[in-house]
Amino acid sequence: MSALVLGHMHPDTDSIISAIAAADLYSKRGLDVTSVAQGAPAPETAFVLERFGLTAPEVVENVAGRELYLVDFSDLAQSPAGMADATVMGIVDHHKLGDITTSLPLEAWIWPVGCTNTVLTNMYDFYGVEIPRPIAGGMLCAILSDTVMFKSPTCTDADKKAVEKLARIAGVDDVMALGMEMFRVKSAVDGASMKDLVFRDFKDFEMNGKKVGIGQLEVVDLSLLDGVKDGLKKEIARVKAEGRHSVFLLLTDIMKEGSELLLASDDPSVVEKAFGVPVSGDSVWLDGVMSRKKQVVPNFEKAFK
Amino acid sequence: MSALVLGHMHPDTDSIISAIAAADLYSKRGLDVTSVAQGAPAPETAFVLERFGLTAPEVVENVAGRELYLVDFSDLAQSPAGMADATVMGIVDHHKLGDITTSLPLEAWIWPVGCTNTVLTNMYDFYGVEIPRPIAGGMLCAILSDTVMFKSPTCTDADKKAVEKLARIAGVDDVMALGMEMFRVKSAVDGASMKDLVFRDFKDFEMNGKKVGIGQLEVVDLSLLDGVKDGLKKEIARVKAEGRHSVFLLLTDIMKEGSELLLASDDPSVVEKAFGVPVSGDSVWLDGVMSRKKQVVPNFEKAFK
Repeated sequence: MSALVLGHMHPDTDSIISAIAAADLYSKRGLDVTSVAQGAPAPETAFVLERFGLTAPEVVENVAGRELYLVDFSDLAQSPAGMADATVMGIVDHHKLGDITTSLPLEAWIWPVGCTNTVLTNMYDFYGVEIPRPIAGGMLCAILSDTVMFKSPTCTDADKKAVEKLARIAGVDDVMALGMEMFRVKSAVDGASMKDLVFRDFKDFEMNGKKVGIGQLEVVDLSLLDGVKDGLKKEIARVKAEGRHSVFLLLTDIMKEGSELLLASDDPSVVEKAFGVPVSGDSVWLDGVMSRKKQVVPNFEKAFK
Repeated sequence: MSALVLGHMHPDTDSIISAIAAADLYSKRGLDVTSVAQGAPAPETAFVLERFGLTAPEVVENVAGRELYLVDFSDLAQSPAGMADATVMGIVDHHKLGDITTSLPLEAWIWPVGCTNTVLTNMYDFYGVEIPRPIAGGMLCAILSDTVMFKSPTCTDADKKAVEKLARIAGVDDVMALGMEMFRVKSAVDGASMKDLVFRDFKDFEMNGKKVGIGQLEVVDLSLLDGVKDGLKKEIARVKAEGRHSVFLLLTDIMKEGSELLLASDDPSVVEKAFGVPVSGDSVWLDGVMSRKKQVVPNFEKAFK
């Protein structure tokens, strides 16, 4: 039975594409692996797959009894059912180190860069394996997405260098035009349910014993969300009532370079503790805040202590 | 304040040398780091440091408030005091993934190979940094030690390839002769207290909620330990009484390629469960068992479930 290469719950473009790329690299190193995902591609990811002629990985519900290579996460909270009876063989990631442990030595490549696909670009290089042209195109888009076209504070020189290399392989001349096209697709909310929008890029965290859900929508102009904002507020209140202490939804304006934070919390004062801005009501503008990973999660972790 | 590069508790040669090598590599990449250790070098390590003109890292007791780069471990149980108030920035390791987590993205290189210094040899290569001749000599010895001169089941082709490269840089013509000289030093027990011998290479593990200590002494001939075996049995009973469910001490004969396991346990039947051999009394011969990491720990983890 093939080992599974698997990204996190509520998969984003990085999670889906890095599973495809890692499976390609591992199989060329002689391992028997298949890329899978914990859900169908979101609109942005579907655009990227279509654009470069890639196929969405099969959706997996339960991983009991399987060998796993994880990409883009190392937290149990972002794992599928059956994790306790699976064997983690490897991790490629760019996040904080989570609570997954193993009982055997593993192969882990975890770097403090903007995107898992940046780590994978270097791994291809290290193992002397050529990146196939369609996969390079997908990887390029994943890095543009995760780094918000190099604007996110998570973006590093390694990410920019990887994009240069990938653009050459994929034959993309105007990287920024491709990025804007992709973010315009990501910005579209027509036809999506409120639940789809909240969970489009949503992660649960354990903070000082409390379950905290944090979602993010990135748009090229915040006004695109005017028509759905009330619905989103109702939806996060509903998601919070499922047993979470707090649910936060970041509405990130990638041109204005900041986020409106929608909140539903047992203790709204954590937002002021985390960001030093007064909060009244159910939303607040956070200037310069674009990264859940580098800005929002660490600040909330401190505020919850 | 410099960040600290730090190996595990009861440091062995790999742990000390990989701290020295990683600090050299990180500093040449522009980071402000110092190598430290959680204890003085054991006789084998002292031989290696002396042989290649290296200096033992300063001993550190408490790491509160410091930035840390960990080498050769990722378990809280092998961490020093003050760990909860330190920030882990990186990990280089070759063990199973432990329970250390971070609140920020980190740099982790963890490979399923025989020795942390094998990973570091590849990292030097990756970053295009030359390995200084004395450090290459130390790294070479660490790999020979961890892989028991390539005989351990943990040994991989990557370890052998690293040894070839390091021997060339260090100017060592006869690698196996150097290994035997080192293991003869390691085999010497004259003048060491029973406590020193038990803790020379000792690690605590958490197995299904129980604290289990596992030590290992490697000798070129088991008969060298005849004079101390009774003393060692008394000492592990004492160490067990400090609050452990079990203490196991592996007396590994690297020429016969097996280990005598001394045991002090609330439930000696775990040894039979783990290795399928009947146990009566306080010791048992385990043929072919040489690796705590790859053979002993995984088997006990299953037996304790």
